[in-house]
Amino acid sequence: MENVLATKTSPVNKTAHAFDKPRLEALLNRRFFYAPAFEIYGGVAGLYDYGPPGSSLQANIISEWRKHFIIEDHMLELDTSIMTPAPVFETSGHVARFADWMVKDVKTGDVLRADHLVKNVLEARLASDKEARGLAAQPAEADEKDKKKKKKKDQAKKAPVQIPDATVTEYEHILAQLDNYTGPDLGELCRKHSITNPDTDNEVSEPQEFNLMFTSSIGPTGQHPGYLRPETAQSHFLNFSRLLEFNNGRIPFASAQIGRSFRNEISPRAGLLRVREFTMAEIEHYVDPEDKRHERFHEVRNTQLDFLDRHVQVAGSTQVARMTIGEAVEKGIVANETLGYFIARIYLFLIKIGIDPSRLRFRQHMANEMAHYATDCWDAEIQSSYGWVECVGCADRAAYDLSVHSAKTGHALVVRQALKEPIVTEKEVAEFNKKNLGKNFGRDSAVIQTIIGNMDEVMLLKLKGELAQGAATITSPEGKEFKLTPDLLTIERKTFKQSIREYTPNVIEPSFGLGRILYSLLEHSFWSREQDVERGVLSLPAVVAPTKVLIVPLSAKEEFDPLVQEVSSKLRKAGVFSRVDDSNTSIGKRYARNDELGTPFGLTLDFACKLALPNPIF
Amino acid sequence: MENVLATKTSPVNKTAHAFDKPRLEALLNRRFFYAPAFEIYGGVAGLYDYGPPGSSLQANIISEWRKHFIIEDHMLELDTSIMTPAPVFETSGHVARFADWMVKDVKTGDVLRADHLVKNVLEARLASDKEARGLAAQPAEADEKDKKKKKKKDQAKKAPVQIPDATVTEYEHILAQLDNYTGPDLGELCRKHSITNPDTDNEVSEPQEFNLMFTSSIGPTGQHPGYLRPETAQSHFLNFSRLLEFNNGRIPFASAQIGRSFRNEISPRAGLLRVREFTMAEIEHYVDPEDKRHERFHEVRNTQLDFLDRHVQVAGSTQVARMTIGEAVEKGIVANETLGYFIARIYLFLIKIGIDPSRLRFRQHMANEMAHYATDCWDAEIQSSYGWVECVGCADRAAYDLSVHSAKTGHALVVRQALKEPIVTEKEVAEFNKKNLGKNFGRDSAVIQTIIGNMDEVMLLKLKGELAQGAATITSPEGKEFKLTPDLLTIERKTFKQSIREYTPNVIEPSFGLGRILYSLLEHSFWSREQDVERGVLSLPAVVAPTKVLIVPLSAKEEFDPLVQEVSSKLRKAGVFSRVDDSNTSIGKRYARNDELGTPFGLTLDFACKLALPNPIF
Repeated sequence: MENVLATKTSPVNKTAHAFDKPRLEALLNRRFFYAPAFEIYGGVAGLYDYGPPGSSLQANIISEWRKHFIIEDHMLELDTSIMTPAPVFETSGHVARFADWMVKDVKTGDVLRADHLVKNVLEARLASDKEARGLAAQPAEADEKDKKKKKKKDQAKKAPVQIPDATVTEYEHILAQLDNYTGPDLGELCRKHSITNPDTDNEVSEPQEFNLMFTSSIGPTGQHPGYLRPETAQSHFLNFSRLLEFNNGRIPFASAQIGRSFRNEISPRAGLLRVREFTMAEIEHYVDPEDKRHERFHEVRNTQLDFLDRHVQVAGSTQVARMTIGEAVEKGIVANETLGYFIARIYLFLIKIGIDPSRLRFRQHMANEMAHYATDCWDAEIQSSYGWVECVGCADRAAYDLSVHSAKTGHALVVRQALKEPIVTEKEVAEFNKKNLGKNFGRDSAVIQTIIGNMDEVMLLKLKGELAQGAATITSPEGKEFKLTPDLLTIERKTFKQSIREYTPNVIEPSFGLGRILYSLLEHSFWSREQDVERGVLSLPAVVAPTKVLIVPLSAKEEFDPLVQEVSSKLRKAGVFSRVDDSNTSIGKRYARNDELGTPFGLTLDFACKLALPNPIF
Repeated sequence: MENVLATKTSPVNKTAHAFDKPRLEALLNRRFFYAPAFEIYGGVAGLYDYGPPGSSLQANIISEWRKHFIIEDHMLELDTSIMTPAPVFETSGHVARFADWMVKDVKTGDVLRADHLVKNVLEARLASDKEARGLAAQPAEADEKDKKKKKKKDQAKKAPVQIPDATVTEYEHILAQLDNYTGPDLGELCRKHSITNPDTDNEVSEPQEFNLMFTSSIGPTGQHPGYLRPETAQSHFLNFSRLLEFNNGRIPFASAQIGRSFRNEISPRAGLLRVREFTMAEIEHYVDPEDKRHERFHEVRNTQLDFLDRHVQVAGSTQVARMTIGEAVEKGIVANETLGYFIARIYLFLIKIGIDPSRLRFRQHMANEMAHYATDCWDAEIQSSYGWVECVGCADRAAYDLSVHSAKTGHALVVRQALKEPIVTEKEVAEFNKKNLGKNFGRDSAVIQTIIGNMDEVMLLKLKGELAQGAATITSPEGKEFKLTPDLLTIERKTFKQSIREYTPNVIEPSFGLGRILYSLLEHSFWSREQDVERGVLSLPAVVAPTKVLIVPLSAKEEFDPLVQEVSSKLRKAGVFSRVDDSNTSIGKRYARNDELGTPFGLTLDFACKLALPNPIF
């Protein structure tokens, strides 16, 4: 089909108009990319339904993800249970620690997330200060309607307040390391900076922990509590032995899963960026803890990325450093090749589906911020109107999860590796003549065996020498002395041969929030034509565009029907999703409508009843 | 790639050995098609994890489903919230009626599903009777080991018991219409036929209803109860207005969704056929209640199917009738063309992915069995070792769901259709002179207006004639008479013009249980080679096979690595999932292992370091 669908490139100015979020939101709602779930029942915060273009965009992103990660690296795909019996998350630590800090308005009882409260209030004060100092950015252009709106909003707002320079610096410092505070820290910040509920101006309570897992009960007796998984990861780990066997016992390998997870967020307010139910894609890559090299690292070594490491953040800055992933690994900024390989692959994936590389950075977690299981963690953060938002996490979970589930269940989640060269070791070993020992020392026999059992190689050799001389004296920790002779024990050098190495692998985990990526992509793809600010356009790459081809018969006359059917059927058979717009409006209006859906190719059927050259849409 | 991958056909005998379920189950478990979820924690009944081949098989079935239904019929795809606020399912009727009947063992408290208990006990009695009469089917062939096993099993079993002919007939009659019984009916059957818990021989309690929805709570306050959806359908209906608008206000059209649903089954014991969490694919096709024709019905009219209608079942038989879907619709066996279109499309889909057409029938629901919303319903039932099992339901839900959600929310879920020809009607209308009426009759004015308001066309015409004569007398229901004159009211013929027709569409719903289809497909695909009963083979169609190509280097020597990499990379780039088996075993053993995975194509790399002709696997 390539030749039929090829478009001519026509240079356009995509930045003629400043990004207009309300306009994008209106488009997404009107064209049903997504909408609040249960809308006709009043909706539920943090729950969204994807309509036809949103579902299709998501399905295409998932399909690319599957190719880019699962097929490319021969990962083992899983599809596991969401409903999970409580003991699993007790072991993993989620029951104790998977929580956010919430505060309550002391008068209304409204619940707020503590860190978001601090962030919103301090950012508002800084913005007010900027305005008072006359530094606020004025929108480049705004039509009369917008100006009126703004004026009305300004009247409702409090007058701008300037704050001292030292306070500005302090606030900026707090915001730069916001994710590093504990609950009590946040409580203290509220008191110290008089942070109240902005909706009511009431004080807020001390932060309390709220567990983010949805609870339920399995079976008819009510005796089996369950949780909806907050991540897919745990079920990868529980299946580790089966996966390892499927991979013929070889390591490294990865398992992967795309599926729904649930988090009972405290008060979600940021559209698709903070939701209570979401589709995620997770990879668990199992690796030898003593060898975290990656055999395909050379393929990505020269990929240039923006890094924001933990030291820069703790120093109160957000200045990124640009370098290749090869350099970052060599310098020890990124801990190892495998982590580096995945960071680069994540970058390549996001760029491929249309994320703007200049609005993508990799930020390292600070010590307090890191999940309880992780030893190092980098987030792929994408910049949108919500600021820099984590869209992919890439953590080294070390051996934490496999170890705790092994310990709890008694089922060894380990790799048993046949050593090419068995490891041969020699050591001195004491053997006791228990009969003689009992006869001579009675109950003290056990004490003597313990003392000698605790001896290291040097001490055993000394004892061996003394026994060769005829006798030796040892002393218990309590100071009791025992005289030993060769009829009571012998010490000999023995050879040990180890042909199997057994170890718990480490896990590197790239974890993708697909809704966040999808929303960021929509922001990055949205613009308006220079001559027509009302005409929103989504420039989605063809690979993820919801509809690939728009079929536009020149008129709605019935004579076009057989041709429309034929073209549409041919595309369908080729697996290409097309959409016919045969409504009774102008070609221009029909194109505009499909610009909003991000359809990359157009096919106009004209009166000559043959395929016309496709008109480029942009 | 076709020419490289083409296989020679070699005739094989797939029915040399009788179907051996334990052997299939061992294969599926060993090769991790699926396994009990949370296995190392002891598992949870009714929850399963799909491993790599199972996930891949499922993903391929979904991909085909999307092409066969969504793309082919331009359906509008959705991806909606699983967590659902309680009011939605209160309105839909699920809170009141989505329940099964359970009984409790009166001594142990064990919970059993009432209809399954009756079925299992009566079937066991019939089997025992058959054996006692010497009619039990002997396995055609059984090796010594199997015979020993059977003997041991027989000893543990109770001795066969013959039952009277009349009882046999009665049991068969009960089983044929088992789905037609209510809870109290099932309780009476237990008493009448002395049905007890087969595990303990204890009596069971009266059947009680148990709601099958999992419950949870949304948000941090605990004040918003939620349910995990037991079907995806409701969220299609809630989004109806948005979908209709997306479809430019035109009808018919369909929405479609593939997603997870949850049912808290009472005591699930039938593998993938009865689970607590499952992936389903649902279509909601919205149609004019006055016109259920389907414009593509002619494409499927001649498809031959096996039908088991409700009359045959109520008469106690399970004899199918074979005819074309066209004939079934003409005869009124299937209610309308749209229902018929989908029944045929379901059939074609199932055959395409590898279901044996001779083990597929369409069974109509009986009156009591039908879901509370349905007006007609046909199940695609697939025969497996579990008997005939519903794998796809195809129901006409009429206007039930859209109507109840409209009524509850006040949001009109209707189609407004501009009529090509406005409907013009004329009727007699009374107009009152309220001033004069009040002066003459005081409070009775209202009574008079009600009497005349209730009159039909004939009565109004009579009254009009009398008034033209000067006066008329009317009588209230209580017998009071009023004398009317032309100054009090006039009756005139008026013209009404209706240019918009507003109606609630009906919904035809094909609903697929993907796990049930997947398991049935595995049974239909499984066989053993004539000369090697141990060697299980899955003959999956290439379109759904988990791995398409097996790459087998002739030896594990490193010299093959570059070639293996090259072939594997080329296939990857073409989007073809391949698997390399370079383990140190014979080619034959490696083929056997991949026969178990249903890999349709093999690619042997030989010492000449060039592509060898692929060896046919079967």
